[in-house]
Amino acid sequence: MFYEAFQSAINDVDGSIDPKEIKEAWIGSLKTGGAQLGNLAPLLIEQVGLAGMPACSIENACSSSAYAFRYAYMAIKSGICDITLAGGVEKMNDLPRERNRYWLGVSGDVEWERLAGTNFPGVYAMMALRYMHEHGMKRERLAEVAVKNHKNGARNPDAQFRSEISLERALRAPMLAYPLTVFDSCPITDGAAVAILCRGDLASKYTDTPIRVIGSGAASDYLAIHDRKDLTTVAAAQKAADEAYKQAGVKPKEVDLAEVHDCFTIAEIMAYENCGFAGKGKGGELIKNGETEIGGKIPVNAGGGLKSKGHPIGATGVSQIYEVVKQLKGEAREKTRQVKGAEIGLTHSVGGSGGSACVHIFRR
Amino acid sequence: MFYEAFQSAINDVDGSIDPKEIKEAWIGSLKTGGAQLGNLAPLLIEQVGLAGMPACSIENACSSSAYAFRYAYMAIKSGICDITLAGGVEKMNDLPRERNRYWLGVSGDVEWERLAGTNFPGVYAMMALRYMHEHGMKRERLAEVAVKNHKNGARNPDAQFRSEISLERALRAPMLAYPLTVFDSCPITDGAAVAILCRGDLASKYTDTPIRVIGSGAASDYLAIHDRKDLTTVAAAQKAADEAYKQAGVKPKEVDLAEVHDCFTIAEIMAYENCGFAGKGKGGELIKNGETEIGGKIPVNAGGGLKSKGHPIGATGVSQIYEVVKQLKGEAREKTRQVKGAEIGLTHSVGGSGGSACVHIFRR
Repeated sequence: MFYEAFQSAINDVDGSIDPKEIKEAWIGSLKTGGAQLGNLAPLLIEQVGLAGMPACSIENACSSSAYAFRYAYMAIKSGICDITLAGGVEKMNDLPRERNRYWLGVSGDVEWERLAGTNFPGVYAMMALRYMHEHGMKRERLAEVAVKNHKNGARNPDAQFRSEISLERALRAPMLAYPLTVFDSCPITDGAAVAILCRGDLASKYTDTPIRVIGSGAASDYLAIHDRKDLTTVAAAQKAADEAYKQAGVKPKEVDLAEVHDCFTIAEIMAYENCGFAGKGKGGELIKNGETEIGGKIPVNAGGGLKSKGHPIGATGVSQIYEVVKQLKGEAREKTRQVKGAEIGLTHSVGGSGGSACVHIFRR
Repeated sequence: MFYEAFQSAINDVDGSIDPKEIKEAWIGSLKTGGAQLGNLAPLLIEQVGLAGMPACSIENACSSSAYAFRYAYMAIKSGICDITLAGGVEKMNDLPRERNRYWLGVSGDVEWERLAGTNFPGVYAMMALRYMHEHGMKRERLAEVAVKNHKNGARNPDAQFRSEISLERALRAPMLAYPLTVFDSCPITDGAAVAILCRGDLASKYTDTPIRVIGSGAASDYLAIHDRKDLTTVAAAQKAADEAYKQAGVKPKEVDLAEVHDCFTIAEIMAYENCGFAGKGKGGELIKNGETEIGGKIPVNAGGGLKSKGHPIGATGVSQIYEVVKQLKGEAREKTRQVKGAEIGLTHSVGGSGGSACVHIFRR
């Protein structure tokens, strides 16, 4: 999988690049597969024919490769490298169920949440219930997020699920943890993603449409949700977004599209607010009014999101960046998915239930 | 453990520092303990009272926290942060033996080495046998490394083993994998280490004796040793050292002391060569002639090395840096351990059997 994503990235360079021009790599992975727990990054780099290149595994649960991207970006800014690689990979299928469950759960709080018997659907269900209670939001808003993301994913050749679903089907789907059904949840996914970054003043050698990283924000938070001030704000994501906006000198209303971390539908609604697209408690209205549809005021998850594109934990952050870059270059392959004239894009990655987060802003 | 190391680092600042001045953290861990596999870094940062700060787990087997340090250094060079934290932590005891064995082995090649039944002692034994065959080195040279490192470790209050051993005892110890005995091997260790880095021009605010990072080199290699050109050269370490020397503008003979990755005694002898302290095949002579003793031409592992100080996988890289910094500041607590007048120090960290490596050079 990593080899395929790597080759796809190399082939995607408009001009041409010798892979040996890449000087260092950061690869996000939670290593759910578990076959290679240590030194995974050197092994992957060996597999793509670049043995010898410095490479390292980066782990912050579901935001792992967003952090890998942040470091690949920092390395260029530091002057140490001119061209870097950020990637991610996860193998989640064909494993004993117990291992998968075990591995995923322990990206959240273990002592108070996991040992008490809850898991991520349970934790996000608590957030959703609290949100519905505080802001009077109906379950339909959650289902509408799922419907939108399936609609977008159906137009994305890289998506895991390429079929639309009806609002009724989403609402009547088997319940996982009230109010979240299976259609409120992202799937278990195998996947890989690779991005190649280069120094701004060298970009014209490789492409006529460089996409610039104009902001990179990151933050952490208490792992246990009971330690947080507010159950319905992912504070790490809000902090990361604030920092990214500050660096970019951009306001939320200037963003033309965003890929956000919709591991559960409620997460997307909170993301609207944490990224500044909606006021506190107003996220539900955004989806209700179709403003996050392609063609709306601020299209969100035009690529299908984790919900439909899939959520290969360690690869997700860079896969979000891939979608935004494709959109900003006007290359979102199937025309019905392209957000027209997009100039500024944002990616929002959350680790676990918000223990870590990383936000990037890009400009065409 | 991480809290203790963190507090020790804060207290170690000659002036004073408000922990909130630290802006981002990188924490190396192979997570052998396995209780918190995802989002470990945010949890550790929460535990030291800094919840909210961006933090991420870095993994390259035994060189994990050396890479964490490299990124903490890059972040400062990038201008994104002024003060950063690099740390590492590993819990290896009080676990089911099976888990420990499983976790450690899979930092090397799985397909050809682990599934065929060998492990790290076996792999390093092959390197040692080949080295002895090619260069006519005797087993005594290996044992002399163990004797020296125990002697140094006996003077290090932070060491796991603080007792000297005789050459005879080392040679007669139970055999693990010929020619390596238990005394040729580092122990299983719990531990943590923390370093605080700051922008060079701000250092005088915190200390009168700043230690500068003048070189940071990193490289990877084929994981399976049968894929390598030469069994007795750790090519990743050599490449990382070459790069660090180039950046530092320093030659190996200018280095006053080094902490190197002696997971097995043969690894230290190869390190002498890969760091340029001895020519190819001449590492055995260096230890035989006492040149790597404290007081010798190039003291190596004055802190006791992995052999005696211990080897808490993810923490080892930064613990080596701690020892070099203490030495360069003239603060290696017990006087008999202090390398007098040391101005330039080097740390050499190897992941697994050489799949990854990272070398740093420091100047007083």
